[in-house]
Amino acid sequence: MELRPIGTVESPLTDLASAPRQGDEGAPDAWLVFEPAVVAGLEGIKPGDELIVLTWLDRAARDVLRVHPRSDPSRAEQGVFATRSPERPNPIGLHPVEVLSIDGPRIRVRNLEALDGTPIVDVKPELCREISER
Amino acid sequence: MELRPIGTVESPLTDLASAPRQGDEGAPDAWLVFEPAVVAGLEGIKPGDELIVLTWLDRAARDVLRVHPRSDPSRAEQGVFATRSPERPNPIGLHPVEVLSIDGPRIRVRNLEALDGTPIVDVKPELCREISER
Repeated sequence: MELRPIGTVESPLTDLASAPRQGDEGAPDAWLVFEPAVVAGLEGIKPGDELIVLTWLDRAARDVLRVHPRSDPSRAEQGVFATRSPERPNPIGLHPVEVLSIDGPRIRVRNLEALDGTPIVDVKPELCREISER
Repeated sequence: MELRPIGTVESPLTDLASAPRQGDEGAPDAWLVFEPAVVAGLEGIKPGDELIVLTWLDRAARDVLRVHPRSDPSRAEQGVFATRSPERPNPIGLHPVEVLSIDGPRIRVRNLEALDGTPIVDVKPELCREISER
């Protein structure tokens, strides 16, 4: 079960401490830059599409099973699987984004909270509607 | 970037050919059976919760970049990243489910289209609402 990077996030976010916790909390627009070998897999994606980007949160600890939600010590600890903490046994990030533009292997998206350089491992249509159309 | 299984799907679905394509298309209820080592990570999950289960689709081809959506040859081929095909470079499945009951390391969920024995790699709160609460 080995993941191969299919691309990389290019973002002004470089610092974990200043990154927003979720994409809808002030995250900047960013580029998804895909490997030449997978560009054929992008065909059919167009501006306005809502996608889920799956990333490998390479700066997260993998040995954490309980966290204070949103790192707020006033909130009781919970199991990581009940939260969206990046710290978890398999640190896969799910990021709902909207496609702004496409330039060959580069896709510009709105509101991505992943840090610059984060590996991309998959992209899928969004989950919340039209699920049986895909 | 190596995934470690955190559990396994236990389901009456054993045959890829007869499995529904999406959970909302007649998939059966199933058990998520977690490894003892990660059970602390489940704390806070309760019946009625809507979760996303991430699986490793271990029977999918990884060298496919273009498919006919829903395996329908009358539909034009598209890039796999514009579809929910299990065949893709990193075959991670996203399954929205509702929790029915919990019995220690076993969580019963509604409408899961993953096959019996599929490795589970992560579980998260659902994406479509209350995102900033998690």
